[in-house]
Amino acid sequence: MDSIEEKFLKLGAEFAPGQEVRQKTKEVELRGEKISGTPVDFSHGDVDAFEPIPGSLDVFIEGVHLGGKQAYTEYRGSKIIREKVAEKLSDFMGTTINPDLNFIITPGTQGALFLAMGSIVSRRDKVAIVVPDYFANRKLVEFFEGEVVPIQMDYFKSDSAAGLDLTQLEDSFKAGVKLFLFSNPNNPTGVIYSEDEIWRIAELAQQYGVTVIVDELYSRQIFEGRAFTHLCAENIVDPENVITIMGPSKTESLSGYRLGVAFGSAKIIDRMEKLQAIVSLRAGGYSQAVMKSWFSEPEGWMEERIAQHQAIRDDLISKLRAAGGFEVRATEAGSYLFPRIPDLGVPINEFVKILRLQAGVTVTPGTEFGPQYIDSFRINFSQNHKEAVDAIDRVIQVVEAYRNEHVR
Amino acid sequence: MDSIEEKFLKLGAEFAPGQEVRQKTKEVELRGEKISGTPVDFSHGDVDAFEPIPGSLDVFIEGVHLGGKQAYTEYRGSKIIREKVAEKLSDFMGTTINPDLNFIITPGTQGALFLAMGSIVSRRDKVAIVVPDYFANRKLVEFFEGEVVPIQMDYFKSDSAAGLDLTQLEDSFKAGVKLFLFSNPNNPTGVIYSEDEIWRIAELAQQYGVTVIVDELYSRQIFEGRAFTHLCAENIVDPENVITIMGPSKTESLSGYRLGVAFGSAKIIDRMEKLQAIVSLRAGGYSQAVMKSWFSEPEGWMEERIAQHQAIRDDLISKLRAAGGFEVRATEAGSYLFPRIPDLGVPINEFVKILRLQAGVTVTPGTEFGPQYIDSFRINFSQNHKEAVDAIDRVIQVVEAYRNEHVR
Repeated sequence: MDSIEEKFLKLGAEFAPGQEVRQKTKEVELRGEKISGTPVDFSHGDVDAFEPIPGSLDVFIEGVHLGGKQAYTEYRGSKIIREKVAEKLSDFMGTTINPDLNFIITPGTQGALFLAMGSIVSRRDKVAIVVPDYFANRKLVEFFEGEVVPIQMDYFKSDSAAGLDLTQLEDSFKAGVKLFLFSNPNNPTGVIYSEDEIWRIAELAQQYGVTVIVDELYSRQIFEGRAFTHLCAENIVDPENVITIMGPSKTESLSGYRLGVAFGSAKIIDRMEKLQAIVSLRAGGYSQAVMKSWFSEPEGWMEERIAQHQAIRDDLISKLRAAGGFEVRATEAGSYLFPRIPDLGVPINEFVKILRLQAGVTVTPGTEFGPQYIDSFRINFSQNHKEAVDAIDRVIQVVEAYRNEHVR
Repeated sequence: MDSIEEKFLKLGAEFAPGQEVRQKTKEVELRGEKISGTPVDFSHGDVDAFEPIPGSLDVFIEGVHLGGKQAYTEYRGSKIIREKVAEKLSDFMGTTINPDLNFIITPGTQGALFLAMGSIVSRRDKVAIVVPDYFANRKLVEFFEGEVVPIQMDYFKSDSAAGLDLTQLEDSFKAGVKLFLFSNPNNPTGVIYSEDEIWRIAELAQQYGVTVIVDELYSRQIFEGRAFTHLCAENIVDPENVITIMGPSKTESLSGYRLGVAFGSAKIIDRMEKLQAIVSLRAGGYSQAVMKSWFSEPEGWMEERIAQHQAIRDDLISKLRAAGGFEVRATEAGSYLFPRIPDLGVPINEFVKILRLQAGVTVTPGTEFGPQYIDSFRINFSQNHKEAVDAIDRVIQVVEAYRNEHVR
């Protein structure tokens, strides 16, 4: 096998959200009848249930009418739009972002992550990755031929912190880690790192000269007014060693426009733009115009959205806890839940297939987020409230059926 | 310097089209007065002069109204749209494209190129690249740490062929080249490879087991009914070793939507999708809907567009030939011209700056397309006809001024 084949073997995407249709259909044997109900795809948010920011299509259309100026922006994005967004984002983050030097508009937050990783990671570089964390993090390190150094996060340990193993983190930094990449709020668990954790991460990064990428994609949708600490605002790490990633694809439901941003280190942003120039030139020119509606939502819109998601979260968690056998930590931000299920005697990938075929419910297997999560799955509960609750009932039914069979 | 810094030094983008604002402004000394006239940016086509396919915004809006189904497609693109486009493209190319296995929708043609290269090229792989050719080709090989093997194309040699050095190509294949990447029609010269050339390329690729990527971005805008040979339709190379790239960004002026496609080898398309999953997930979901207008333009629209471009081409070429000192081969397809200018005693990058500052005309320096093109520049003449002609007059004036001074 040549080296490129080997590299791509590690990039399997068939269990990634939305890719179910490409799974090699090895037949699974269903135990019991199909359970009827409206199909729910928990692998990503439902932008029909939670619609894009009002007026976003209008600003897109205005962008198209602007013509060539909007179609062909600098690779790092339209200067006017960078200026507008950098100002609003500076306010939100509690920092100062220079739109000329420290800011890039990217094709989605995934685009930001790819460009940042490609601008930092070389072959054999050690990269510390939280377990569990967003599945692309590990794949990106592998694609750029770096070495993944896993850092455990025990999210069931306490409700007042994410549970990152800071000793393991320091040991990895001592052992030569070049980059630490993590999502805050964490994907898939929806937990927020405590102020203490962020400070400690920052102190260690500064002490050992480690670059940090923080993916804060979900940092606007915070439940119960919990505190959120933006690492970039703490001024502990040299700003030239920090990149923060953000975007309007999730809470704001603008995923269809493929928009994200990265800000921080001028040196890294510069490289990211050079890379963007050969990756896809720029975030879609007309789409960039949609950034104008970001952080300029109608009065009360975001509060309402957060309240609606919190209500769904509460119902799902009650159901799962009442069912017994599930272990679940409440989402603190964003719209992910990462329940642990009892041993069912079938591998998690098969359980996920069964769920889809028997109950019309799509979830993402825990193993996408770390090899040991053979007993967990992720759901994105940004869905129609009633349909989500019904779907969780069906999940519980399937788990019950397999569990009883297994222990019998 | 660490290896990532070194890698990015080779990726300089400040002379790439549209990136002029990021050039370090070393002052250039202008000789003579500024020449007034409407500024023309020849570095890319003007989508205000040649507007997108009629109705493209309408199908976009329909896509937005389709909601989640359109926002979250498979990474390789919406199945329905793949089916529609693959059928139309099969007709155009004279081949059969299976929309499920052999086709991917990408964020622009640049996206297709990046994904294809990233799916084929590993460290130390030898990649044959035509000189001159699209500037990103060389940069992509360098980014993936392959080795560029330049193949000369003497485009002034004959009017009946592109002028590729086929002996040099065979020698490179013998010496272990893994991939041959070329654009047809060629960017920056606008010449078409003859049927003989395509056959010979195909025979050599088949003989030596070399993979071929053909970038046919401009293959719809063919002047004077010239023959065009699609390598993929000739069935000489094992189809699993061929990728063809295409898109609606140029002739169809849809660049602002960031859309491209690649088709061919199922194995490579598969890898491209896995890579897309970590690069930016998918081509913008709503933008994908715009593909519906591609190859379904109003009756006569494409013919009219071709005629208009041919008329601009003819006027510019007459002017340049009448001016004396310029050497120019007529564009056969697309909207690029790549004139050779007389020695002016200033480096080409400085000449390009002078043109912009003194005459309001932006062109791309020849050195972007190969290090030896210190005496050439590229223009994209998809512009307002009169403004383009006036701008070429100004280019001629500047060249005259510097030329006289230099030989004095």
